[in-house]
Amino acid sequence: MQYQRPFSTFGQLVRWKAAGFDFVELLVPETDEIDLSQLRSALTDAGLFAILTARINLERNLASDSSEVRQSGRDYLNYCLDVADALNVTTVSGPLYGSPLVFAGQAPHPVPESRRQARVDWCVEGLKQVAETAAKAGIRLSVEPLNRFETDLLNTTRQGVELMKLVDMSNVGLTLDTFHMNMEDDDLGEAIRLAGPYLVHFQANENHRGYLGTGHIDWTDIVRALDSAAYWGTITLEPFRRTDERIGTPFAQWKPPLDDEQAQLAASCALIKNLIDLNGGRQ
Amino acid sequence: MQYQRPFSTFGQLVRWKAAGFDFVELLVPETDEIDLSQLRSALTDAGLFAILTARINLERNLASDSSEVRQSGRDYLNYCLDVADALNVTTVSGPLYGSPLVFAGQAPHPVPESRRQARVDWCVEGLKQVAETAAKAGIRLSVEPLNRFETDLLNTTRQGVELMKLVDMSNVGLTLDTFHMNMEDDDLGEAIRLAGPYLVHFQANENHRGYLGTGHIDWTDIVRALDSAAYWGTITLEPFRRTDERIGTPFAQWKPPLDDEQAQLAASCALIKNLIDLNGGRQ
Repeated sequence: MQYQRPFSTFGQLVRWKAAGFDFVELLVPETDEIDLSQLRSALTDAGLFAILTARINLERNLASDSSEVRQSGRDYLNYCLDVADALNVTTVSGPLYGSPLVFAGQAPHPVPESRRQARVDWCVEGLKQVAETAAKAGIRLSVEPLNRFETDLLNTTRQGVELMKLVDMSNVGLTLDTFHMNMEDDDLGEAIRLAGPYLVHFQANENHRGYLGTGHIDWTDIVRALDSAAYWGTITLEPFRRTDERIGTPFAQWKPPLDDEQAQLAASCALIKNLIDLNGGRQ
Repeated sequence: MQYQRPFSTFGQLVRWKAAGFDFVELLVPETDEIDLSQLRSALTDAGLFAILTARINLERNLASDSSEVRQSGRDYLNYCLDVADALNVTTVSGPLYGSPLVFAGQAPHPVPESRRQARVDWCVEGLKQVAETAAKAGIRLSVEPLNRFETDLLNTTRQGVELMKLVDMSNVGLTLDTFHMNMEDDDLGEAIRLAGPYLVHFQANENHRGYLGTGHIDWTDIVRALDSAAYWGTITLEPFRRTDERIGTPFAQWKPPLDDEQAQLAASCALIKNLIDLNGGRQ
């Protein structure tokens, strides 16, 4: 039986605030998916701000072989800037470069050197163009490396830093997500310190995407590394592994809650805030 | 420039033995891919034994909706038994249940409850049938959970143990791989202890699939858990993340070496053997 949320989307914002959160990370709504002015008012009423995550796909792909699709990728990111402006949001995050794999039904395959270099060049060119428009609106782009199964373009924090040097714009930075880092980086603390100067947004996710504190990520180590990197920006939780873990239950997708998750979300939020209180200001 | 291996496939076996390995894990060769009697002799000459890993796909799928494909899945696993017999191999390992995702170009999607249960039933039925044949040949089947992007059927060690109880045959056990466990299990040591009674094969892979010892898996903890579980069976290394880590280089695939890897393989092998020497026999 599906858990029926007793709260509307906007009512949920008030509950998240009550659970201890200061802001929400929202997927960029598609055109006409939600009334942006109502959402903006609801955020204000709840005492929350927001950041946005872009929904790229094969047709919105800065790194596509097709110039038309690359243009669609830029058009989409410009649309994200319009939505950000309408919601008074200053950060648009996500795998902005495109090149999705598993969620687009794409199997990994070898990429010849000429195409590898071309994809990097297209990605840098596209990010620069969109970032120029974003700068005029006071918006930052934050580029998130994903694990090897979700993209073949940007997997490690080191690659993310390399991309930052190629793009070289002050309003383009990095989003790091411990779920992906856990699969791709040698050492999570070392990676955070490396990315420090470019870090714009941080996603604190367990290795298995359950509630923060229920897996094996060393949160004390993560918080100390963020402190070493002098990062005290936004930190999001994105838990979506639900309690149904029977054989044959797909884990690799966002699912609505089966139960009221307020207590677990509040505990996860408090856990990371307490570690920050206890470990911040060491550097 | 591609590194040219100065050794034949069979010559490579001798080098692996020299690097400290006692056995090799081989993908089940397709029909006529390799001369099995020559391979068997080469293994004997090198002083190595082998275990086999099955190559399942959408057409060799015990959990398919199609009864014909399920039959192809059983036929393929029976073929694997024939190859095992020809090579004097007693363990056939891998995601024997089928249901591949990313490497088959399948996006994750919701599975309704009726289909979830049916897939589990088909998988149990197929494994039982093949295991009966395997028992007569003195061969064990070892079922490997994979991460959420590679399959939606069996992801956690706990699910693996549940499957073992459903199959309930003495020649069917579990393969655990720390690469997948690192993504899906709450605690790797706890998972190993839980799986202990069913554990047939173990794959010691770094979180990023580089050489063992270059990532963040706690190998001391793993070896102590294997000891607690009274497991002293086969342990394989499967490193395939190569030194080329530039942006846009796909990580999610097996690739031939770019350099001679003998020194790194020997060091990884020695590392795990030394930890076993230093931590074994504690229970």
